[in-house]
Amino acid sequence: MRSLLDVTDLSTDELEELCNTALDVAEHPERYSDKCRGKKLATLFFEPSTRTRLSFEAAMLELGGSVISMPGVSASSAAKGESVHDTARVVSCYADVIAIRHPKEGAAFVAAHSATVPVINAGDGGHCHPTQTLADLLTIKREKGSFENLTIGICGDLKYGRTVHSLINAMSRYKGTKFILISPEELRIPDYVRKNVLDELHIPYEEVSDLEKAMPLLDVLYMTRIQRERFTDMDEFERLKDSYILTIEKLSSAKSDLAILHPLPRVNEISVKVDDDPRACYFKQALNGKLMRMALILKLLGSRDFCEEPKVTIPGPTCKNHACITGVEQELDCLYTEREENGRRVRRCLYCEAEAL
Amino acid sequence: MRSLLDVTDLSTDELEELCNTALDVAEHPERYSDKCRGKKLATLFFEPSTRTRLSFEAAMLELGGSVISMPGVSASSAAKGESVHDTARVVSCYADVIAIRHPKEGAAFVAAHSATVPVINAGDGGHCHPTQTLADLLTIKREKGSFENLTIGICGDLKYGRTVHSLINAMSRYKGTKFILISPEELRIPDYVRKNVLDELHIPYEEVSDLEKAMPLLDVLYMTRIQRERFTDMDEFERLKDSYILTIEKLSSAKSDLAILHPLPRVNEISVKVDDDPRACYFKQALNGKLMRMALILKLLGSRDFCEEPKVTIPGPTCKNHACITGVEQELDCLYTEREENGRRVRRCLYCEAEAL
Amino acid sequence: MRSLLDVTDLSTDELEELCNTALDVAEHPERYSDKCRGKKLATLFFEPSTRTRLSFEAAMLELGGSVISMPGVSASSAAKGESVHDTARVVSCYADVIAIRHPKEGAAFVAAHSATVPVINAGDGGHCHPTQTLADLLTIKREKGSFENLTIGICGDLKYGRTVHSLINAMSRYKGTKFILISPEELRIPDYVRKNVLDELHIPYEEVSDLEKAMPLLDVLYMTRIQRERFTDMDEFERLKDSYILTIEKLSSAKSDLAILHPLPRVNEISVKVDDDPRACYFKQALNGKLMRMALILKLLGSRDFCEEPKVTIPGPTCKNHACITGVEQELDCLYTEREENGRRVRRCLYCEAEAL
Repeated sequence: MRSLLDVTDLSTDELEELCNTALDVAEHPERYSDKCRGKKLATLFFEPSTRTRLSFEAAMLELGGSVISMPGVSASSAAKGESVHDTARVVSCYADVIAIRHPKEGAAFVAAHSATVPVINAGDGGHCHPTQTLADLLTIKREKGSFENLTIGICGDLKYGRTVHSLINAMSRYKGTKFILISPEELRIPDYVRKNVLDELHIPYEEVSDLEKAMPLLDVLYMTRIQRERFTDMDEFERLKDSYILTIEKLSSAKSDLAILHPLPRVNEISVKVDDDPRACYFKQALNGKLMRMALILKLLGSRDFCEEPKVTIPGPTCKNHACITGVEQELDCLYTEREENGRRVRRCLYCEAEAL
Repeated sequence: MRSLLDVTDLSTDELEELCNTALDVAEHPERYSDKCRGKKLATLFFEPSTRTRLSFEAAMLELGGSVISMPGVSASSAAKGESVHDTARVVSCYADVIAIRHPKEGAAFVAAHSATVPVINAGDGGHCHPTQTLADLLTIKREKGSFENLTIGICGDLKYGRTVHSLINAMSRYKGTKFILISPEELRIPDYVRKNVLDELHIPYEEVSDLEKAMPLLDVLYMTRIQRERFTDMDEFERLKDSYILTIEKLSSAKSDLAILHPLPRVNEISVKVDDDPRACYFKQALNGKLMRMALILKLLGSRDFCEEPKVTIPGPTCKNHACITGVEQELDCLYTEREENGRRVRRCLYCEAEAL
Repeated sequence: MRSLLDVTDLSTDELEELCNTALDVAEHPERYSDKCRGKKLATLFFEPSTRTRLSFEAAMLELGGSVISMPGVSASSAAKGESVHDTARVVSCYADVIAIRHPKEGAAFVAAHSATVPVINAGDGGHCHPTQTLADLLTIKREKGSFENLTIGICGDLKYGRTVHSLINAMSRYKGTKFILISPEELRIPDYVRKNVLDELHIPYEEVSDLEKAMPLLDVLYMTRIQRERFTDMDEFERLKDSYILTIEKLSSAKSDLAILHPLPRVNEISVKVDDDPRACYFKQALNGKLMRMALILKLLGSRDFCEEPKVTIPGPTCKNHACITGVEQELDCLYTEREENGRRVRRCLYCEAEAL
């Protein structure tokens, strides 16, 4: 495999290398403007995500390559029921690297194993979105100078936000990381993140519900959206929603070198007035996302042994996760992997990584 | 600002310059085939308009640049509610110039003020569509040799057609222009065009309802479509619709050097039989549109002080125009400008230019 | 005309030439990577077909050209009712060659006659899809070494499958071709293929219903999908559907050098297990499709007298085929051609080729 499915497929050294390439691209774009001449990226978006797609396409074009694009499911063969496997095999005849977004968890994994060219996961349902996390990490690196000794506040929907889980995962690998997890009770991080990441790696963290109280402690504030539909109790939603909106007023107690991140799109969880504050980094983050995608494409097209790690698999019954790709893909064997997690042997679906019960 | 929002943002000198560039491109395309090497155009279409989008994309490609594209709203983040402001800021990280089409009036204005790259209005609701007018103007220039001393017939829906209002505006700046406005009573030009443009600038015009009678007088005939849904009285529609269809027969009394224009797409308001008449210029108009878009992209990417004109703004209540972008965009201050119009001080919405009541 | 509407517009010599170009492209891609520099392909897809579109776009990009794209009808002016004629005329101002896909039969013919640049039929309803047949033919040529003396099994829906009819047409021109037509009774080839092609050219063929029995005889097996909606009797469908699914077991009696083709997308008519069998050629077919599209684009852009053959036409009443483009296109004269077919003078619609009754 020479693909990127999850950000933790990358070692910290590989991540460092990607960051360094991205920074060099930022400083000397002319050195890279011909690196992918004659190469093609296919953007296969089985659900629309314009920003992510355009970021990938801009990245490839700035490397001198070109793009073929399936911009959204309504304009695709998906209606005719073509499998991810067949699509990935066929598009491998047309492109040198594939970026795939799909509503089903594990779809990028299936594509990576069927394709004969490298595959980048541009989001597979609620599962992973590694290039967003690469954008987050480069932004932290550029704004704070290092990944070490940072107190990172993460605010909003910590239960369902896949970018939040990936960021916790990725930053837990660095010395001195501390998290302050700011959310309503109902939307705290799931147990598997708490146990398998934070507890396992002995990362200090606090769970609080008040953004303003946490503010003065933070080096990084990662904002996310709270979706109305996540709440069972609408009174609770109405009572809480404003307390998780970042305003100029709430920033008054923040450090002067705080870095405010947001994966975008925002709805109203950060006031537009904050945009002009020098601590607002979310538009820089969009630029950093493009730079990291450039570094990643270069890496994947240049190397033949990137992310190589065959897994031992065990056949098993149908995956219980309704969002798993195994539920819709033709003749896909249900396979599982096992590993030690928090002192316990855990069996997980090979595709979506849901725990087998 | 280095953007093009309305055709009247251009002085007659700037317009002349664009026409001259376009004509030079037509004659020596090879001189321009590398001018935008390494540059990217983003086409952000929040509503579909294939012809306009393809024209912009062809223009950029013929200049040696490349394109990233959001081809229609169904394939966009718009579903997730991202604001025009955020989209424009983010896409500024991916592209060197943006062409935006949006159903809301003033949306291109908002994009131009949020973007860090030049923005071209590719149509903002019923408000403006300046590159269509640039296509119209170059066609008049090429076919008639000059913008002066022309009798211009405009036929069809003169009430709602934004291209009609822009053309009247643009041509009213030239010596000897005379308009013959051909439409059913119900679909005559709106008062603000009559008063603020024609009367203010003392342009001779006639309002008539009979296309055939007007025909022999015309140097230019600009046809537009009459949409059934514009009529309140269906009997009236049935009675009138055929009289505004241009046929070979109706052309028999026309001048031999008449230039027939149409912004396209047509439905049936010009018979296909007319296409082979040498006076039919509407397909040339499509070519001219591409040439003017090339000239415009060159101008916007080459200059830092194009269309520079900061406006004095006054805060005010919510704009009353239901189609205004202020009704949907997050935290957009309602701002107004004031100017003398026809001897009267008029306050207008900064975004959609609707008069404040 | 310098367009490709139907595969039989090509003589066997022209087909040979295209195959040779495609093979040379496969062997020496670097020799072709600049052949279309500065040229543009427009992909106008009035219905979505992602694979076909991406194949065309990849082909043009690998020739050094660029692409403008209308990826599917929802993102098009089609909603506004623009005719094929107008679209083809306008897009001729933007591109050097057009690939059009449209749900109406004869639409590509209309486009070819209105456009001022070459047009490639990328599928016009149930009528023709010549570049699919070009992919099929190159695959047969590469896998079998020659077009002569082959026993070709075609399995599945032989009644409605346009790729099946084209393949029979094309292969009937070669010495020693024999067909074994494998389908349920209800889905046998239509009479006009039987009479006008097979009988007329004295091609030996058998019609059978059992795939397994036919298997040992075949040099080529062309699989197609049987769509549930083609059956009037659902019991019949349930009883038959599995017998037309190709599995590893059914391949046990096949020749060791059998070539298995499928136009894709498949649903489940070939088991995924077959993909790894060296006789499975359907993914190679996708690659061959791109190569033939490259050869075709080169041919159409390089020559001014390709497929030149004006037809004598006769005016007539409205075409009776409900799927014909004449039913929807503005002011399209209903025209017919006549020719000898099987000893009988037959009059056919110029556009969709349906027989006039």
